[in-house]
Amino acid sequence: MDEANGEIYFALRDFRSDFASISCSGPDFVQWVFVNHAIKLLKSSIGLFQTVVQDRDHKFLTRAVEEAYKGVDCGDGGPFGAVVVRNDEVVVSCHNMVLKHTDPTAHAEVTAIREACKKLNQIELADCEIYASCEPCPMCFGAIHLSRIKRLVYGAKAEAAIAIGFDDFIADALRGTGFYQKASMEIKRADGKEAIIAEQVFEKTKAKFQMY
Amino acid sequence: MDEANGEIYFALRDFRSDFASISCSGPDFVQWVFVNHAIKLLKSSIGLFQTVVQDRDHKFLTRAVEEAYKGVDCGDGGPFGAVVVRNDEVVVSCHNMVLKHTDPTAHAEVTAIREACKKLNQIELADCEIYASCEPCPMCFGAIHLSRIKRLVYGAKAEAAIAIGFDDFIADALRGTGFYQKASMEIKRADGKEAIIAEQVFEKTKAKFQMY
Repeated sequence: MDEANGEIYFALRDFRSDFASISCSGPDFVQWVFVNHAIKLLKSSIGLFQTVVQDRDHKFLTRAVEEAYKGVDCGDGGPFGAVVVRNDEVVVSCHNMVLKHTDPTAHAEVTAIREACKKLNQIELADCEIYASCEPCPMCFGAIHLSRIKRLVYGAKAEAAIAIGFDDFIADALRGTGFYQKASMEIKRADGKEAIIAEQVFEKTKAKFQMY
Repeated sequence: MDEANGEIYFALRDFRSDFASISCSGPDFVQWVFVNHAIKLLKSSIGLFQTVVQDRDHKFLTRAVEEAYKGVDCGDGGPFGAVVVRNDEVVVSCHNMVLKHTDPTAHAEVTAIREACKKLNQIELADCEIYASCEPCPMCFGAIHLSRIKRLVYGAKAEAAIAIGFDDFIADALRGTGFYQKASMEIKRADGKEAIIAEQVFEKTKAKFQMY
């Protein structure tokens, strides 16, 4: 961050010094110097912005990783952590609670989304980001999508979790490798009258509930 | 069901009567009559089995559809219901609770899985089936997969829900149409040192927690 600040400082200093020495030049040259320095300044600002983003991403991702360790130490579940952030502040910091809550859906990301929504009293997190210690599984990615979170930053690739024995379907959300095709359960879709009855639910109720 | 029972009755009666009339025939003919009738009996049994399966599927799917209506009537959430069944008995019957619980993950299927696991005090539902009033979205399908449920029966196609305004990502789980590609959020994977730190979590903790 100091490095990027320094770059901006030098870009501004060069800008001022060049402007001082072009007082006797024509307007085209002044314009050229101006554009040239504006580009330099912009580049330095982008550098600063990237450094700031990297610094905050590092901070929150580290927190998610710490949560992953904490979850295992507490015996709450697997080594996964997730942090929901809004306006650079942590809303919730959670870890996997599958064992603690006897709930196979209590992955770190799902838990963090639930807790954040409860805390903020809203069903959408459109102004939030989520930091996950590991690539989210399809269930978690679905939950992230449904909560309208605007940004996901994750640490470990799914392979790191699969390598120690976790279900390889973790990798399927972000790669689109169709985990449903690997499912061993039998899937049956109703047909005929039953399908019609089930589909009528939507038409019959659409005026009665609030869309979300 | 009565019709299939009747078929078995007649198949058995014909079997007995044919056996009575072949007392003076050779062993090849006896064998032929036996095999022929065994096939008939088997066919009738399959018919009975299919009818029984259809009857129970109809019963539980109807219950899931009723839950969908109930959820809207209560104002708890969208028109979706799900029922978890074990040994022909309903373990839990739930509906969408997104609005009631201010929780975007509280879809009917996820809610039913959570409640069933809590009730049975186990994190796997390998001996259970789930009946959903509508095709499960990727999050719910992920949850069903994670809970190891052995059979999924669903009513409405995703299109019926999409037609009244629900997110078209519902259709992506069972068709593998890559909902992640439609996501508008920014996704960033950590690299370098951060990725290593995050991936080390698994190696460093694998001996400390119970795999599930």
